[in-house]
Formats: sequence, structure tokens, C-alpha cells
Amino acid sequence: MKRVMLIVAYEGTAYQGWQVQPGRVTVESVLNEALSALLGEKITVIGASRTDSGVHSLGNVAVFDTGARMPADKISYALNQRLPADIVVQRSCQVAGDFHPRKCKSTKTYEYRILNRRFPMPTLRRDTYFYYRPLDVEKMRRGARYLVGEHDFKSFCSIHSQAKSTVRNVYDCQVLCDCGAVPDGRLVTIRITGNGFLYNMVRIIAGTLIQVGIGELAPEDMDRILAERNREAAGPTAPALGLTMMGIAFEEDPALPGMGFQDGMIVAAAHEKNL
Amino acid sequence: MKRVMLIVAYEGTAYQGWQVQPGRVTVESVLNEALSALLGEKITVIGASRTDSGVHSLGNVAVFDTGARMPADKISYALNQRLPADIVVQRSCQVAGDFHPRKCKSTKTYEYRILNRRFPMPTLRRDTYFYYRPLDVEKMRRGARYLVGEHDFKSFCSIHSQAKSTVRNVYDCQVLCDCGAVPDGRLVTIRITGNGFLYNMVRIIAGTLIQVGIGELAPEDMDRILAERNREAAGPTAPALGLTMMGIAFEEDPALPGMGFQDGMIVAAAHEKNL
Repeated sequence: MKRVMLIVAYEGTAYQGWQVQPGRVTVESVLNEALSALLGEKITVIGASRTDSGVHSLGNVAVFDTGARMPADKISYALNQRLPADIVVQRSCQVAGDFHPRKCKSTKTYEYRILNRRFPMPTLRRDTYFYYRPLDVEKMRRGARYLVGEHDFKSFCSIHSQAKSTVRNVYDCQVLCDCGAVPDGRLVTIRITGNGFLYNMVRIIAGTLIQVGIGELAPEDMDRILAERNREAAGPTAPALGLTMMGIAFEEDPALPGMGFQDGMIVAAAHEKNL
Repeated sequence: MKRVMLIVAYEGTAYQGWQVQPGRVTVESVLNEALSALLGEKITVIGASRTDSGVHSLGNVAVFDTGARMPADKISYALNQRLPADIVVQRSCQVAGDFHPRKCKSTKTYEYRILNRRFPMPTLRRDTYFYYRPLDVEKMRRGARYLVGEHDFKSFCSIHSQAKSTVRNVYDCQVLCDCGAVPDGRLVTIRITGNGFLYNMVRIIAGTLIQVGIGELAPEDMDRILAERNREAAGPTAPALGLTMMGIAFEEDPALPGMGFQDGMIVAAAHEKNL
């Protein structure tokens, strides 16, 4: 038996999120079926980030155990032949038998992308949130700074969350503005990195920073909202389609040959075993 | 009667190109139907660029004549309510009654986008051409320089073209490289601006510059290929999905309030009438 790690990219549009649910098509269920068919045994993956319905990912991480003889690094190529075009495994490798992608300490990066212009743009309609009221990006940046650090993010957590603790550490929260992506408008990206995120946390942060961007809230209100520890103090939950999970870096051994950091994006560098 | 100009963005994936063809769904046919239903009269648009099946656009231009009383600048909003999500009118305005988007001198900009990495990325699968062999972008840049200027582009023209002259003026041809768009790879964009393009010209240029990028051709070969005036001298026609028509600037009156130039992208600035 060996434990294999997959780095999985997907467009979430067609899926009811990551996690297996009876009677629904999820990224996890499609992976389990394709892996089971490929390896000739029942495979059940463990995912790092159980993304919501409609959320995308450039580099989610999943592990599974198999007795099959196929070399771990060859599984990606064979598996992609059996996956639909909206799920593509970016890499497969063997990892330590006790490596668990949710229990191992990690740094995750998400991006929330807002298309801020007068009209929607068809080529961006699946992975950006179209918002036509002009956003003051500088105010959003000032608001975002209050989120950096270790805080109780209870105000930015869905009331349906079952998390025991709502304290998380946000390492960075940038608001980027790209005026070259589309004519007459811009792509405003909230890029946030932390040691973990609560249920709907990034989408509630995005919805609240949009309120700051249109002047409904002041940048300083972010501080007050954090202190209130009450979901009703924050803004609305921004739609799922704007959210992309960019990647995960595991803290155990970031020096090992993984996909590494690249231009601000973090992709899985896990405890790879050389056997 | 008045003549109305539309700036039209679309994702071409679902369409058999721009131009009306019997029994096929095209961008033009969808526009004609939606406009006719909206305005209560039979409308037939004239398009600036008759893009191929699968090609996208951020700003193609169409004009039509109507006797309807709806103000020209309001048509965009009403029309978008009747259009599918993959076609969005970006602007509508009244133009001079004799303005013709193919007869008026114009500058067009196209981008051919290549996703150059080991694996496809699902979120980019519809509007980039996935190409896994590593591209030498510097060589592609040197090759692209030979295309700038007035040349006979017969070697870069489909043999099915009916153009009388194959001489065109390419004002600029840049090869851009974005390493931040995706982990472990880059988005290589060929951005080309000119006074007009022959049938498949940008896709043949892209296919030939890819040959330069992998070393099958030398940058200097671009000069020889131009001189041969023979389609067989150039590389293959790159797939349609990588091509996006970025916009058009009309030469008649670029100073008039149009969508203008923005960060290297050109969008329609036409002979707008203030009535």
C-alpha cells in the first residue's frame, strides 16, 4: 500500500462543490469514480479544502491509499484521460503514509475576483463576480489591512459552521487591480492567505470589502466588525463563482520538491517520499 | 430611420462563428433574432469582423438600421435582457447613416493566447490553446518583428480566402509572457494590431510562431516565409479557441467619445452622432 497525493484543478461551475453528497455530482465523487476505475479497487480520496458549490480551484490537494502497482507520478497522466475537461490533475506523487491534507499544518491562498465595469464580459462570466457599481480599491485595501493577523473571525463565518474555534491567522490580504484585463473596467482581486478559513469566510470578507468599496462601510468598520463577533455585523456573502482556491503549501517540509511558490501563488509542496 | 452601432462581446465556444449560415447558430443570427424581437421589425446587422467558429471577441462591432423609437444608447440594456450569457452588448449608440464597419478604415487588434505548461488548466480551457512543449518566448519575439510593416501576407492566408489583395499592414506584433496567471507555467499571448487581417491570418501566424518557439523554425525564417508567398511555407493554423478579437478603432474620427484605447487594447470609437 502507498499513499498518493494529487494536486487537482477544477472549474466548479458544473459541480455541487468538492464533498461527496448522495445523488449529487461533486469533484470528490468524480475523482473517486475515475480512480476506482483506473486502479481496479475502491478508492476514496481525502481532500484538503472542501470547496463550496460553484467554487473553482487551481490546486486543491487530495490523498488516497492504493495497492496498485502503477507508479504514483504516472497516475496523473492516466487519470486525466478518464476525467472530464473541467477537472485536471496537475501532479501526482507518493507521500508519507501518515500524511493527511487537513491535519497537516498548511497555508492556503484564495482569490476572490470581481469584474467591476458597466457590462458583464462573456469570457469572464464563470469565474468572476460581475459588479457594476464603481469600487474604491484604495478604501478596500485599507479595510483589508484590518484582517491581517490572528483574529477571531466569527463575524466572517457562516452561522451554519460547525468549527470549534473561529480564531484564524490571516498572513496577507491584498486587493489587486488589473485595468488591462478588460476594456473600460477592471478586475479587482482580493487575494488572501492564511492558516485556515472558516465556512464562507472568504466570500463574507469579499462581500464586506465590496461594501467598503462602494462607501456603505468605512475601512475602519472592518475593525469594529471583527470585534463584534457577530455574522450580522459583516456584509453579505459574495457569490461562489468569484472564488478560486489558488493553492496550498504544507508546513511540514516546504523545502521538498513540490510545485512551490510562484509569483504570489502557492501550490502544494507536500511531504513527498522518494522511494 | 437611424443607424445604430453595437459593440459586441462574446465567448465563441457555442457558435459556428459570426456570420449567418443556414441551419447553424451564429453570433450574427442570435443578434438578428434578439434585435428583431426587441424592436418589432426585421433587423439584419452588418458585422465588422466575421470571426470563425470558436473564436471569441471582447469588442466586435455591428451596425443596423431601425425605425424604432427606442433611444440608441438604451438598446444595449434592453437587448442584453434577450441575449444568452455568452453574448453581451457592451455599448450601443447612433452613428452616421453611411457608416459601414467593413468599409470604414480601421485598426483591429487580436490576441492569440497559449497556455504553456505541463497540464491543461480547467478555468482557461475555453479561451487559451494548451501547448505543453516549452516555448522560447524571446525567439518568438524576434520572429514576430519580421511581421511588422506592410507585407504581402499570402503565406499566412488560408487557401480558401477570396481576398483580392493579400497585402496588409501590421502595426505591431508583441509576444507577451505572464508567469503569474497560472502556477508552474505561463500564458504566452501574441498581440497583433493591423489595418486588416486575411482569412486565418492570426491563427497561421500563431501556429508559425509556435514553431519558432520550439525551435522547428528560426526567427529569421519568418522573413523567408513572407517572401515565399506560399501557404505551405508557413506553420499550421493554430486552433480557433485561442483567438480573441480584442477590439476595433475606426480611423474616421478616433477623437470622438468612443470606448477608446486602454492599456494596449483598442475598442470601438466610431463616428458617433450627437442628435
